[in-house]
Amino acid sequence: MTFWDKYHNIIKKNNSYVCVGLDSEFSKLPKHLKNSKDPIFEFNKEIIDATKDFVACYKPNFAFYLSQGLASLESLKKTIEYIPDHIPIILDVKVGDIGNTMTNYAEAFFNDWKVDAITCNPLMGKDVVQSLIPFEDKFVFMLALTSNPSARDYFKPHDLYRRISQDIAALPFTQFGAVVGATHSEQLRELRDLMPNSLFLVPGIGAQGGSLQEVIESTLYSKLDARFLINSSRGIIFADSSKAFAEVAGANTEHLRNQINTIIDNI
Amino acid sequence: MTFWDKYHNIIKKNNSYVCVGLDSEFSKLPKHLKNSKDPIFEFNKEIIDATKDFVACYKPNFAFYLSQGLASLESLKKTIEYIPDHIPIILDVKVGDIGNTMTNYAEAFFNDWKVDAITCNPLMGKDVVQSLIPFEDKFVFMLALTSNPSARDYFKPHDLYRRISQDIAALPFTQFGAVVGATHSEQLRELRDLMPNSLFLVPGIGAQGGSLQEVIESTLYSKLDARFLINSSRGIIFADSSKAFAEVAGANTEHLRNQINTIIDNI
Repeated sequence: MTFWDKYHNIIKKNNSYVCVGLDSEFSKLPKHLKNSKDPIFEFNKEIIDATKDFVACYKPNFAFYLSQGLASLESLKKTIEYIPDHIPIILDVKVGDIGNTMTNYAEAFFNDWKVDAITCNPLMGKDVVQSLIPFEDKFVFMLALTSNPSARDYFKPHDLYRRISQDIAALPFTQFGAVVGATHSEQLRELRDLMPNSLFLVPGIGAQGGSLQEVIESTLYSKLDARFLINSSRGIIFADSSKAFAEVAGANTEHLRNQINTIIDNI
Repeated sequence: MTFWDKYHNIIKKNNSYVCVGLDSEFSKLPKHLKNSKDPIFEFNKEIIDATKDFVACYKPNFAFYLSQGLASLESLKKTIEYIPDHIPIILDVKVGDIGNTMTNYAEAFFNDWKVDAITCNPLMGKDVVQSLIPFEDKFVFMLALTSNPSARDYFKPHDLYRRISQDIAALPFTQFGAVVGATHSEQLRELRDLMPNSLFLVPGIGAQGGSLQEVIESTLYSKLDARFLINSSRGIIFADSSKAFAEVAGANTEHLRNQINTIIDNI
């Protein structure tokens, strides 16, 4: 099944736009798991079991699966296999290379690792996306305007984010979407105008200061198909470090899902 | 030993500014190696044996070590271990993330994988480098202006490459350098003016059309310390696909080294 179909199925089935960021950093895992055989996988497994009925997708960040050598990449592989087939997986890897190099990344992540989507850095220009177009069943979130404070350094001057967004909008929207930081309240509506059909991956709510209300009001595509995935990582997976961590993660995911749906209902 | 010292030692010892790109794509390996126990490593081993007296550094591209699952990452690990200690290794991975995520990449690549340098994408702004500054013994090549045709899409309009270059120049030059594409003949001199002390990693000579003469004339720092590393990948490692591939790679590396030195001598 294509990513695009998976996305539409899961938002109906789970009534959710929540993306759970599996930033499962070894040093932050609950103490009682650290001596288990495969701590990162054990952690993710419990998180997935507790959240899988409330999520729209999972987003592991590649950086956190390198800390224990190849063993932690094995944990990532097992995590990807463990996530139920009907839930899309976005690998947050922010790669951006060209030609054959990009093809190699795409083949590895899509075909071998079997994720449904990746995040991608567009800085090197349109050559970056050329190699991705043939992967019609998959999906790529291009960085359009990230949520971190220094996004102002290069994305904002001379409206680079605007040119990137226009280029994303010119690609097939069933294959290419945008990473749009929740923290840019003044640009959110413009970003939706620039990319009217695009699926947004939205980091930056909560700790980083982005407002859920603003994101939803500014970027909602339609009440039945919001065209956004709102990410929460630490606020879900590391909300509790006791043996009840997964239970708390499940409750927080359900709560965020309901918050989002209430805001949509009231628009 | 710091990357900076390693760089200065090797350019003297091998009298070389050649960076050999280990873009060791499985499908391109010589046929006679494909059935060996670890084809990618066997290939790299022969290339390293044949070139190690003529190089300034090796640059494996991460993308080409994902094609055979974790086995190919194991080949990368073995390659890194096999490269003699006095030769710097640059992992071409073009990562660019922030905060803790970037710290995780740096710890993994520098401390666990034990490479001396990485390439890094600056698009997300100064937050990207903040996490790298503490790794004082290591080195980071920031993308300033890449060699591919679509570098014109975002790097060139409104002089983004200029702003990025100024920001690179403001960082400690013993830790941060720049990727500067050989294909931008009109910008090469300006890039050196913008980053007077920076070490340049220069892709794009040969097949991509960059001129060795122009690169050297425009960016030479001094005759004893050129402050550039000129990359060749396929022109060296895939110049021949017979059993003599390594011999040809060695001869081509020596030839490129001598070409560069002759141009420097004649300036």
